[in-house]
This record gives sequence, structure tokens and C-alpha cells, in this order.
Amino acid sequence: MPCPPMGLVRPCIAAMKGYVPGEQPTEANYIKLNTNEHPCPPPEQVLSRLRSACTGDLRLYPDSGATGVRKRLARLFGVAPEQTIVGNGSDELLSIILRTFIGPGQRVAYPVPTYSYYQQLVQIQDGQIHTVDYPDTYALPQALADAAARVTLLANPNSPSGTLVPLHQIQDLATRTNGILVLDEAYVDFADGGAVELVQHHPHVIVIRTMSKSFSLAGIRLGFGFAAPEVIAQLWKIKDHYNINRLSLVAAEAALDHIHIMRQNARQICCTRDRLAAALREMGFHVWDSHANFVLARRQWPAAADLYQELKRRRILVRYFDEPRLRDCLRITVGTDAQITRLIDTLQDILSSQVCCR
Amino acid sequence: MPCPPMGLVRPCIAAMKGYVPGEQPTEANYIKLNTNEHPCPPPEQVLSRLRSACTGDLRLYPDSGATGVRKRLARLFGVAPEQTIVGNGSDELLSIILRTFIGPGQRVAYPVPTYSYYQQLVQIQDGQIHTVDYPDTYALPQALADAAARVTLLANPNSPSGTLVPLHQIQDLATRTNGILVLDEAYVDFADGGAVELVQHHPHVIVIRTMSKSFSLAGIRLGFGFAAPEVIAQLWKIKDHYNINRLSLVAAEAALDHIHIMRQNARQICCTRDRLAAALREMGFHVWDSHANFVLARRQWPAAADLYQELKRRRILVRYFDEPRLRDCLRITVGTDAQITRLIDTLQDILSSQVCCR
Repeated sequence: MPCPPMGLVRPCIAAMKGYVPGEQPTEANYIKLNTNEHPCPPPEQVLSRLRSACTGDLRLYPDSGATGVRKRLARLFGVAPEQTIVGNGSDELLSIILRTFIGPGQRVAYPVPTYSYYQQLVQIQDGQIHTVDYPDTYALPQALADAAARVTLLANPNSPSGTLVPLHQIQDLATRTNGILVLDEAYVDFADGGAVELVQHHPHVIVIRTMSKSFSLAGIRLGFGFAAPEVIAQLWKIKDHYNINRLSLVAAEAALDHIHIMRQNARQICCTRDRLAAALREMGFHVWDSHANFVLARRQWPAAADLYQELKRRRILVRYFDEPRLRDCLRITVGTDAQITRLIDTLQDILSSQVCCR
Repeated sequence: MPCPPMGLVRPCIAAMKGYVPGEQPTEANYIKLNTNEHPCPPPEQVLSRLRSACTGDLRLYPDSGATGVRKRLARLFGVAPEQTIVGNGSDELLSIILRTFIGPGQRVAYPVPTYSYYQQLVQIQDGQIHTVDYPDTYALPQALADAAARVTLLANPNSPSGTLVPLHQIQDLATRTNGILVLDEAYVDFADGGAVELVQHHPHVIVIRTMSKSFSLAGIRLGFGFAAPEVIAQLWKIKDHYNINRLSLVAAEAALDHIHIMRQNARQICCTRDRLAAALREMGFHVWDSHANFVLARRQWPAAADLYQELKRRRILVRYFDEPRLRDCLRITVGTDAQITRLIDTLQDILSSQVCCR
């Protein structure tokens, strides 16, 4: 067989490493606290609407305008349907935004450490990555607004730190930024915040959200975004016309119709999170104030990598990042109360027996 | 409110018009023969597996490797799982392929008229579109192989003509093409053909297919592709890691487990199609030999646009393309036997009463 045509691959793609998502164990009986999924199932109302939609109509294409979802978003968030867009996860919206605004060599700025997928998305566009270091407090770096980037990305609350930049600082950033400012609010339902209103006054601001975390619907892949109608119209050109399948549209409509259940479940997560953070601090971890459904916990000894392995051996999966500034940290998703109690007990047991100090 | 930041939009995007999908009427009681959906519902086995999958597990991310689907594809098509990739519709696979291989100014060639979305996908990459005219017979233009394109796209069977380039000519094209050759086999299950085996010997060939037509699953958005493992590995870098939701994965696995039902339904469509083509020819239309689930029918008078409108007034939707070489044509999806009888009767009525000759 002749050699594969690797010379035809765009150099920016050939040079890329693929994104490595968090482990999805195939075996059961793991406590899975590694990919920020919600421990509660989606509301029964969502599941029953979904079951009712499993009919012969699946032979037909979905509504390319996602009309039902966008009407509900408009009503719930106080915007016009023309200011909304729906994506196959908010990852697709990030991709669409970069494909709209970033050509080869054009600059995308974001503070780090943050959601590591940003890097791949910029590389795919052959864009120029301009990172600005967060200080150890994860306060908003002032240098971000001075980066003269065509697109600035800000995860708020941030992952993996869980920290939140308050709204007035976001407003200030929006005023000081000339390019497109993307506020990635994947975790905002676990925080007091949210900047959707900014799109009414700042035509260069795009706010994106997801149903993967607070709505307990990571499995249906649904993200949504808000921006000025003129910006949405440009993003719309990039989006696959039938990007959201029929069932995900149904699930999203039902989830928005019962948004009070999401809010209630999010409140529960926040309580459990605060208990987890307190327990970790008591054990000697440094824990950043989290406004998300996970906490980032730092500890020099035993090494975080060893703790991660020992937890995994005991059937608890947390996230470990073998990356600068994160090697001494664990990111722990907030599960059910029972799961978090088990995690805390297990960690205490490990630390007291020092199983993982070599 | 300040002006939207339109100057930041990439010029290739700003210059684009969006793709206009076929009409999806919101009212019922239309006979819908315009977007090449299958008239049969998906198999009950698929629907019941889907219903069983509407559980609390939807809170979890899907399998980013689409392992279950890819194993089945490998078994059914005689390739390795590493030679397969799954997309959110074959449209996403086309997008992934162009993002992998096409940078600004690089050439993509395809014969026209064909699937009009190719144009938008190349424009999004700021690529150079190089079209080669099909002759009136829609035989493969020899000039296609001489285009020196980085990527060559060939819909086979072609839309909207329904015509098929035979396998030996495809093999010849694969031998003569230096760049990537994408064989878009969205409609191949209605034809005697299929070129998946080529990927075993031609590392620059990619074959893509879809469940939107023959599998009666346009609503779940599932496309799949075949290529050399090294090529798949590059495409994989571009694909959103969780591009296929949990329910679409379940539907696709079930559909492949019952692929005999698809084949049976496809045979029925072919019978109805041949009856439709014969009836149209009897009425004086020129109809190209179709190997797909639609026919392209040409007629000078009454004008195709008027026929389209009159059919729509009578609640039958067919596809009319206001484009060069297609303005005197209708593309008619093959529906159920009853629907096609109704279409034939209605057309005969229109032609005999000459309602639309102005």
C-alpha cells in the first residue's frame, strides 16, 4: 500500500496533539468525579418527553433553526430569539466562533490554566495563541485586556480552578477589549453571576453556556450562546445546518421548561461543594473558592499524582492534570452527598495510612 | 449600542451566503418529497432501544470514541475500527475533512451541479473552489482528475442528478488523483455500488456515508467515514471529542444491528423510484437514470418553477433549485408507493389542465 498522504495535512493540524478527554471507565462501580458531570439524573419530565419523541418522525431532518429551544432561551434570558444560537455542545459553539473570526496567524488570548481544549481549537484555525498567566489567586489578570487579541476567551467560572471573576470586572473587561470577548459560562449555574445581559450593550461580547453540567444532560450535547443579532447571523453561516438532532432538541426544550429543577439541583451541589471544600481544607489541602460543580485542591505531599492513583485503585476517579501549575492539584467533581462522604473518608484513610508516600 | 464588530469577521465568512436547506413545513398534511428523507419509519428495534436509553445515564458524557458504532462498522464493512470515524451527520465529516486538509487559497475540486453545501464548506476554509462541469449525461468529467486539487469531492450517486459513476471509473479516478479523494456515498444504498474497499489500497481515498437517507434516521444525525488509519488519526484531531450524543450512538448501533431492514426498505424505494421515473418519462419529462432515492426530471414547458409552485399549492413539496442548469428541473424524493401515485396523478392533472401555463 502506498504511503498515506501526510504531506497534504495542514501543518497546524499535523503538529497538533489531540485533546484527551477525562477517563470514561467502561466498568461500572467507579465513583466518577473526574469530568464535571452532574450526579443527579435529568428530570423525569425530560426523560418522558424524550421517550415520547422516539417515533417514526426520526426519519425526518430536525429543525435547522432550533426554533423551540431558541424561543425558550429568549423568554428565559430576556433576549430576542435572533440573539441566540444552539450548538452540539458548547464545544461546537467555541469552534464556530473561532472559525468565524480567526484566520491563520490571528491572535486568540486567554488566561491560563483554563479549559485545555481552547488550545486545540485555536491550533485548528492556525491561529496565534496568546496566554496570560493567572496569578495564584486566579484573579483576572489585567494584561488580558491589553493583549490586542482578535478573540479573547474567558471561562467564568474558570476550570479547573472553579474561581469566579465578579460581574463588574467582566464589564470592565468588556469595555477595555476591542476584539470579540467570549464568556464561557459552562459552570455559571453553580455561581451567583452570569453576564448574558452584557450582549445587549456590547456587540462584541458572546456568552456561551451548556446543558452538560447543571442540567444533567452531558449525554445529549447541547450548548447555547447569546450575542448581538448581527454576530449570531455570522456564526449561523458556519454552523452545520442540521447541527442538533431531533432528540437533543426535545430534551433541551423540556429541560428549559423545567429549569426550576436544574436550579434546585444546582443549589444542592453548592451545599455539597462547600462541605467538600471545608473537609479538604481540614485535611491540609489548599482549596480555591469554587463557584462551579468541582473544587481544585492543592497539596505538596503526598504527591497529587500518587493520591490520584490511590483513589483510582479504590474505585474513585478524580481529575489529575500533568501540566504546569496543576501537577500538585486534584480537580474533584462534586457528586452526591454520599459519594462526597465516601471520597472524604477515603482520602482521610489514605492520608492517615500514608499508603502513597513512597 | 455601538456598531457590531463586523470588521473582525473573516472576509471569506463575511462574503458567504448561508446554505438554505430544503423547506421543512411546520404544518402537517404536506406530502414531503423535497429533502430525500426515507418514507419508512426507522425499525421498531431502533426505536425501542432508543426508548430504553432515555435514562439517568444521559447525565454522563457519551463515548468519545463511538466504540460500539465503529466496531459494528468494521465488522459490516470488512475494515478495522481504526479505519472508521463517526460524525454528527456526514456534513460534519465533510467539514472535518476540509479543516484537516484545506488552508486559505488551497484548491478543492468537484463536478457540478452537485450537493450545494460543498461550496459553503470550502468558503469557510477560505479555500479555492474549482468546479468542473458535468456533461448533460452526468458522466464523470475527465477534467476532474486533472484539476490538481488538494481535495477532490465526488458525490456518488450524485445529487441532484441521481446518476452513478461505475466503480471501475472511480478506481481509475483514484489512481489518477494525487490529492485527497472524498467519495460522498450518502445515497449508495439505493445503488449497486460502493467504494469502501478502495480505502484498503488507496490511502488518499476517504469514503463517507450517512444514516439520513437509507436508514430512515435523518433526525438523529449520524454520518460515518472510512479511510486509512493514518488519515483517520488526523481527522480525529479536528472532531469535537464528544461530537455524537448518547442517543444517536444507541440509534446507530441498533440500526447497524438490523441493517437487513434498511436493505429491504431500500429495495422497496428502488422499485417505487423506477415506477416514478417511467411515469414521468411517459408525461414527457427527461429523467436521468437514478441510483438514489430521488429522481431529477427536466421539462421545458410548463416551467419547472411553476410546476413546483402548483404542486406546493396542492400540498406536495418537491425541490426546485433556482440555479444554472437546474432551473428547468424538479428533484423529487421517492416517497411511499401511495405518495408517489398521488404525485403522479397530481402532475397528470396539472399538465392536462395546464393550470400553470401563463
